Amino acid sequence: MPVAEPDIVGRLQRREPSGFLLASVRGVGQVDLQPLLWTGVLILAALWSAGWRIGLFATLGTLISTATAYVLRVDRSNIALGLQGYCGCLTGIALVTYLGHHPATYVLAVVGAIVCTLLTATLTTFLSPYGLTALTAPFCLVSGVMVLGAPSFGRIWHGAPKAVSDPTSGDTGISWSDLWHAFFTNVSQIFLVDAWYVGLIMLVGLALAGVRVFLYAAAGSVMGIVAAWALGAPTAQIAQGIYGYNAVLVAIALGAVFLTGTVANGVYALFGAAATTGLTASLTSLFKPFGGHTFTWPFILTTWALMAAVPLLPRLRRSA
Amino acid sequence: MPVAEPDIVGRLQRREPSGFLLASVRGVGQVDLQPLLWTGVLILAALWSAGWRIGLFATLGTLISTATAYVLRVDRSNIALGLQGYCGCLTGIALVTYLGHHPATYVLAVVGAIVCTLLTATLTTFLSPYGLTALTAPFCLVSGVMVLGAPSFGRIWHGAPKAVSDPTSGDTGISWSDLWHAFFTNVSQIFLVDAWYVGLIMLVGLALAGVRVFLYAAAGSVMGIVAAWALGAPTAQIAQGIYGYNAVLVAIALGAVFLTGTVANGVYALFGAAATTGLTASLTSLFKPFGGHTFTWPFILTTWALMAAVPLLPRLRRSA
Amino acid sequence: MPVAEPDIVGRLQRREPSGFLLASVRGVGQVDLQPLLWTGVLILAALWSAGWRIGLFATLGTLISTATAYVLRVDRSNIALGLQGYCGCLTGIALVTYLGHHPATYVLAVVGAIVCTLLTATLTTFLSPYGLTALTAPFCLVSGVMVLGAPSFGRIWHGAPKAVSDPTSGDTGISWSDLWHAFFTNVSQIFLVDAWYVGLIMLVGLALAGVRVFLYAAAGSVMGIVAAWALGAPTAQIAQGIYGYNAVLVAIALGAVFLTGTVANGVYALFGAAATTGLTASLTSLFKPFGGHTFTWPFILTTWALMAAVPLLPRLRRSA
Repeated sequence: MPVAEPDIVGRLQRREPSGFLLASVRGVGQVDLQPLLWTGVLILAALWSAGWRIGLFATLGTLISTATAYVLRVDRSNIALGLQGYCGCLTGIALVTYLGHHPATYVLAVVGAIVCTLLTATLTTFLSPYGLTALTAPFCLVSGVMVLGAPSFGRIWHGAPKAVSDPTSGDTGISWSDLWHAFFTNVSQIFLVDAWYVGLIMLVGLALAGVRVFLYAAAGSVMGIVAAWALGAPTAQIAQGIYGYNAVLVAIALGAVFLTGTVANGVYALFGAAATTGLTASLTSLFKPFGGHTFTWPFILTTWALMAAVPLLPRLRRSA
Repeated sequence: MPVAEPDIVGRLQRREPSGFLLASVRGVGQVDLQPLLWTGVLILAALWSAGWRIGLFATLGTLISTATAYVLRVDRSNIALGLQGYCGCLTGIALVTYLGHHPATYVLAVVGAIVCTLLTATLTTFLSPYGLTALTAPFCLVSGVMVLGAPSFGRIWHGAPKAVSDPTSGDTGISWSDLWHAFFTNVSQIFLVDAWYVGLIMLVGLALAGVRVFLYAAAGSVMGIVAAWALGAPTAQIAQGIYGYNAVLVAIALGAVFLTGTVANGVYALFGAAATTGLTASLTSLFKPFGGHTFTWPFILTTWALMAAVPLLPRLRRSA
Repeated sequence: MPVAEPDIVGRLQRREPSGFLLASVRGVGQVDLQPLLWTGVLILAALWSAGWRIGLFATLGTLISTATAYVLRVDRSNIALGLQGYCGCLTGIALVTYLGHHPATYVLAVVGAIVCTLLTATLTTFLSPYGLTALTAPFCLVSGVMVLGAPSFGRIWHGAPKAVSDPTSGDTGISWSDLWHAFFTNVSQIFLVDAWYVGLIMLVGLALAGVRVFLYAAAGSVMGIVAAWALGAPTAQIAQGIYGYNAVLVAIALGAVFLTGTVANGVYALFGAAATTGLTASLTSLFKPFGGHTFTWPFILTTWALMAAVPLLPRLRRSA
């Protein structure tokens, strides 16, 4: 890491509030699997630039998830890396996006962020025998359950949520403007935001985390565009980043985090980025009948599947 | 346990029929996670009071499941605790409720009870590495599969089953009568029965198992009502126990069985009871498109998730 | 095995092309869980007799899956047994059947066959702690995801696929002609082929693998017919093999491969064959709302469930 980081573990153990706040900022960056503090700062700034509601709920969710982990005495070095905050961050954004800005949504965001921390522990128990991590699955589970159940309850439901984009039909011609919009919105859609400048700021944050992280994020975004275009996906969806955000995450996860930097591993990471683009359409069709949401499931399932395969494929190698 | 229990393991090993019958009675009580013989007796009486068909199919299912385990040489002390009978008990009730009282339903109840015992072994294999138990999942799987497949088959299908209550819309005002009905039907709905006096008898059975069991069952029922009301669930559903039976089970499981008796664990158990109430609506919406049934899935998923999280949350502690 | 087999492991290690080809032929036979070379030869011949498109895509899929395993350095003795080819074989057939014979389908068959090999490794990682194998699950996952996602993409979708037979309604009277057709199509439907002579050739291939394999395949087919008739399934579906192909696979797997040859194990295998017949209807109903396909899921789920139960049921015994 290019910048010296403060001793967050020590501050947490000495119960200094700054330790808690720094761990939370890192939590925002961990959505993109990066523990660097400045990456978290830039992504947080990008979220506030997307609108104060997005920024506020992202901040609230991250703080509550991290605090829950602290109260339940989760391992301090794990908290310090930001690994207890990122699912709360995404859950806050998802709830205000799909349920609207109401008092009840604040209550649900707090409860959802608490449950995210619990499910992170649950999934760690189930996955660690296989050397896998929870990724953003706690977020997908909590937000999915809450958005699915919400219409049943008079006190938290205020009319139909923002319609889910239907990525399954539309025009397939593509222009230069579509392409560069897609390149950046692929990064911002990880946080459910459709705005190219938000993606741009986030990409700067990822660049701070290192050249390899930046290159794989960019390559993943390109791969998502190419795969979606080659398959014949509707251009409007590609330009909004609907087809590429999972490819960005898979490329970062496999290319820059979980595997060593060999050529074979790089090919594997980009193959995964392309595969997750196709999987996005399948999962969206799967979830449609019962009103479920795709969220980052394609990234999670692809990364789990490809990482679990590695021990039996000696050509590939996990990083230490 | 306040009452001396007979030596059921010894009787099973000596092949005395009384050992088999006593193990089966305990099986009925194990639906509520209680091995005490008298708890089983009272719950069985409550089921017969709900109607001879319910009582007969509950008895048949429990006997067949327990006998299957005996024939396949399942560990005798496990059978003696009633752990091989409770899923057959619920499966019998579910099949006569959803498929009607026909000769074919008897055959299916026998086959279903046999498969329950097999799936109890299956799930024990998959879950024991994580220190989890099968709970009522074999029942939910067997009954879910049978009810889902039944309309395809001319010889077992006799018209539409009893309509599933739609817990997703309706009036939300609540009266004193709704409240006390809900308190008791939350207990009887565990067995798919909507009758307050059945719940009352069962609650007496749970009280025999100990003060802590009774208090958590009652607190779980109250928590289910409060959570459903706070979320804005339709009153008719709350009064029928549709929203609270999973909360009762979660409160008993986490509060009185699987965790030690600390304050933090108690808060965790009641938080789980509230969470499972919300989850009930989500799963009902999830199952609706393909005609699936919620059964006790919310209890199972909540209990598995919260128990699997405990090893990583040092503030909480599993019981020995 | 009645016939001497060539040293395929040695040929693979010496990089002789014949080793690769022989391993691929075995891969075709492994769809029916048989490693004998001549079983693979006869099944491959049966597939080409079903039409050149079926034969070509089955061959292509098997070769690509096996080659992928070779390139990624999967254990050579595992490749030599044909265990890396059978899912690609079925995926090729499924894609040309459901997406039609177009240039894009060739590309998808190649990609699908590659992913099959990756998912075989994934599932081996997840299942080996329980002593289970991947069976045909990689095929079901890859083909299911591709067929589900295909309509979203303009460049790979060419109109509605062949309609799935609706196994949930129709006449239930049965004739001698229905019965013997069903007996053979139960074997050919494993490969998505509805033709009695294809099933006949395959059954000859299975007979070469040994008397026990042949007897359980035949008994599974009979059990599937009896169970479907007893439940009251529509005759047209029974005659096309829709209800019985999973029963054939379960009977072979439990009766002739994974369990020892005791009477109790034989009863268990045939009980499983009957149970999987009922499960076929449930899964078809489950998949209907989102356009999913049943494929060999009933066989996979039944075999996993029954095999995982065995260690806790001392009356039954796994083979070494």
